[in-house]
Amino acid sequence: MARYNPVELILKKRDGYCLDESEVSFFIKGFLDGTIADYQMSALLMSCFFQGLNLTETKAFTKSYIESGESLQFDPSLPVADKHSTGGVGDKISIMLAPIAAALGLYVPMISGRGLGHTGGTLDKLETIPGFQTAYEMQELYDLVMKHGYALVGQSDALVPADKRIYALRDVTATVENPGLITASIMSKKIAEGAKYLVIDLKVGSGAFMPNLTRAQELAQSLVETGRSFGQKVRVIFTNMNSPLGRAVGNAIETAEAIEYLKGNYLPDTYAITTKLVSQMLLMAGMYSDESQAVTAIDEVVANGKALAKFEEIIIAQNGDPRVLDDYSLLGTAKYEIPVKAPASGWIAQIDSRAIGYALVRIKAGRMKVTDSLDAGAGAYLERKIGDEVREGEVIGTILSNDERAGQAAASAVADAYKISPEPAPAQEIILGMYP
Amino acid sequence: MARYNPVELILKKRDGYCLDESEVSFFIKGFLDGTIADYQMSALLMSCFFQGLNLTETKAFTKSYIESGESLQFDPSLPVADKHSTGGVGDKISIMLAPIAAALGLYVPMISGRGLGHTGGTLDKLETIPGFQTAYEMQELYDLVMKHGYALVGQSDALVPADKRIYALRDVTATVENPGLITASIMSKKIAEGAKYLVIDLKVGSGAFMPNLTRAQELAQSLVETGRSFGQKVRVIFTNMNSPLGRAVGNAIETAEAIEYLKGNYLPDTYAITTKLVSQMLLMAGMYSDESQAVTAIDEVVANGKALAKFEEIIIAQNGDPRVLDDYSLLGTAKYEIPVKAPASGWIAQIDSRAIGYALVRIKAGRMKVTDSLDAGAGAYLERKIGDEVREGEVIGTILSNDERAGQAAASAVADAYKISPEPAPAQEIILGMYP
Repeated sequence: MARYNPVELILKKRDGYCLDESEVSFFIKGFLDGTIADYQMSALLMSCFFQGLNLTETKAFTKSYIESGESLQFDPSLPVADKHSTGGVGDKISIMLAPIAAALGLYVPMISGRGLGHTGGTLDKLETIPGFQTAYEMQELYDLVMKHGYALVGQSDALVPADKRIYALRDVTATVENPGLITASIMSKKIAEGAKYLVIDLKVGSGAFMPNLTRAQELAQSLVETGRSFGQKVRVIFTNMNSPLGRAVGNAIETAEAIEYLKGNYLPDTYAITTKLVSQMLLMAGMYSDESQAVTAIDEVVANGKALAKFEEIIIAQNGDPRVLDDYSLLGTAKYEIPVKAPASGWIAQIDSRAIGYALVRIKAGRMKVTDSLDAGAGAYLERKIGDEVREGEVIGTILSNDERAGQAAASAVADAYKISPEPAPAQEIILGMYP
Repeated sequence: MARYNPVELILKKRDGYCLDESEVSFFIKGFLDGTIADYQMSALLMSCFFQGLNLTETKAFTKSYIESGESLQFDPSLPVADKHSTGGVGDKISIMLAPIAAALGLYVPMISGRGLGHTGGTLDKLETIPGFQTAYEMQELYDLVMKHGYALVGQSDALVPADKRIYALRDVTATVENPGLITASIMSKKIAEGAKYLVIDLKVGSGAFMPNLTRAQELAQSLVETGRSFGQKVRVIFTNMNSPLGRAVGNAIETAEAIEYLKGNYLPDTYAITTKLVSQMLLMAGMYSDESQAVTAIDEVVANGKALAKFEEIIIAQNGDPRVLDDYSLLGTAKYEIPVKAPASGWIAQIDSRAIGYALVRIKAGRMKVTDSLDAGAGAYLERKIGDEVREGEVIGTILSNDERAGQAAASAVADAYKISPEPAPAQEIILGMYP
């Protein structure tokens, strides 16, 4: 392998020159084996933040991340597809999407993460199912997918360890928000897990890390082109994260809401997103040529119980207790129910989803540090969306908490997240666009 | 003390906002006590590199550096003055300047550094004097200055330890070249040592870290204004570093050249710089009101031997062997003398001083890492300057080395540093300007 001086590579990037694949690989390998210090990696990452990464550099980071760990290779004839979400508040889409996709014949090696800060994590939600196991080696994930059509697991240590370590460093050095680094982080995992088709739910708005559509489109292009260079077809759906998704925000109650969905009890926003994402997976995989046919098929596997059966199948396969499908109290409960009251009369013009996410950290429905413990039963039902008319003092939601005092503080903080306008405010579109 | 989230402070600076004094202080203290990691400091430093530091931030860094260690307080009525140089090739000015200034009644608490990369260090040169001690505590430095009018010492651990640690980090993370950070690093030491008047030799050209006068003027303004805010009067002299200074480059032979200077055997360029710097120190301290009077006084203390006597006095005070004043072989010797030959006929149009500095690292006249050992006797006599006419093959210098092979490689690399033009090239000014 070529040898470089780490300081000169930082200098090169700092001064606006592009690093080639060999230089990126040298730096990342050196960081992993300890010959390049973490303070040098953070200086390089900050230089990347300021100078940006071009597509060649983004691919080089992605490649080095992939090469740092193991990859899955599925039979090329199988329609292996996956979904990624950039993270939101109340986002339980994966839990509906994966069994529906599997019921329709897609193979979904779904690797999920944990919640951090204001956003929740699918893994935390799934683990409210008693016994449900999410720690699997790469080969075990492969076997689950081949046997059941999908699996719902966490990231094994063998999957892109470079990303795992570099992401942890980015998190504490203010170097997260760069399209190239974000692309490498997302795409390396999805390429290494063997997905041929990838649909990305790129959330835009107050509860997302992408505040507007322009920045989101820039990232989408980077994601799609990087996927293409590794032989993966990627489609990005821009979805509205100005309101929390669905009705429930909290680990147990979100899992329950997902189960209700699989029983056919839809909510409008989660239906719109789930159906859009699964239909795009089916279209990319060539299983349908028309979106309305795909949507019909999706509706059918929910209506006929096949999607719910698929979920039951994976719960059992991953050592979970399938009785949760009928008894949601097994997922977690809360002692106190505290009403959230509308702070004024008028129309809901804005909801600060991020503030709601942080408010619920107080009752341990979320966490600020990876080591913080969670309370499965804690959360909130949020009944109203942007555009709804409310009267001052009207109950617009309920905090579920095992700590009454923290629950009251959370109720007050959640109420503050609603901006009530004296003028009617329009309801907002859920699906904002698609790329390409 | 106020508490902040380090990541949010990095983010703030990264996004172009200014850090206030309390935030800078928190970050630097946290770094020193280990609660803020070095990878976070390097991310902050890289953000500072890209966003720049305004005067308020530069002062805040300077203040935190000073407060991290001990400071000297001289009687306010004493004319305590010092000189700083940004580092060059063949720069032995401090060794002449300090005894001359002391002989004229200035008090000079001179703290010098070691050579690194292509630039030499005054401390390495002084240590070629057998027995000469440079490690002193702050109080000992004070006592030496009060007794002898000056001292020539190294940086004690108690002097701005924050700068010491942060500079080491900047060096390996490509975050050196920022005017604000450079200012804080230089000024904190010179303020903490108690100097009321400071003259700065800011070198410009091929052998300096400031490639042109525009960038140098920007730095000069930052230095002068920061000094003023701490009650220190600062004047910056821009000097030409396109040629190595004087005739000798190498630790023993530079010390010998400095002694010759104090005996009245001047070379034109070192005379121009030394005289300019000392006269500005005298003018700032109000000891003379006219530069030509100051120059006359400077010439006098060399001519009448007072400056040489001051040097002898400090050698004895710092446990050095004063016999070096008459026997330069005690400073160090070299077994081999290898001629450097002009690579072509014509006029010397350019000299790559930086390349000469690096060439001499091969014979251990300099070092690449602080832990590298030096050969005191190694170096080069460089007889020709920009504008001189030479014939191909003519001896234009001599390499002194204790390793014949390395010496020959150095001779060839030094010869390559001379760009010979077929057209006459003008000689260059030594003093390029002054600020303010």
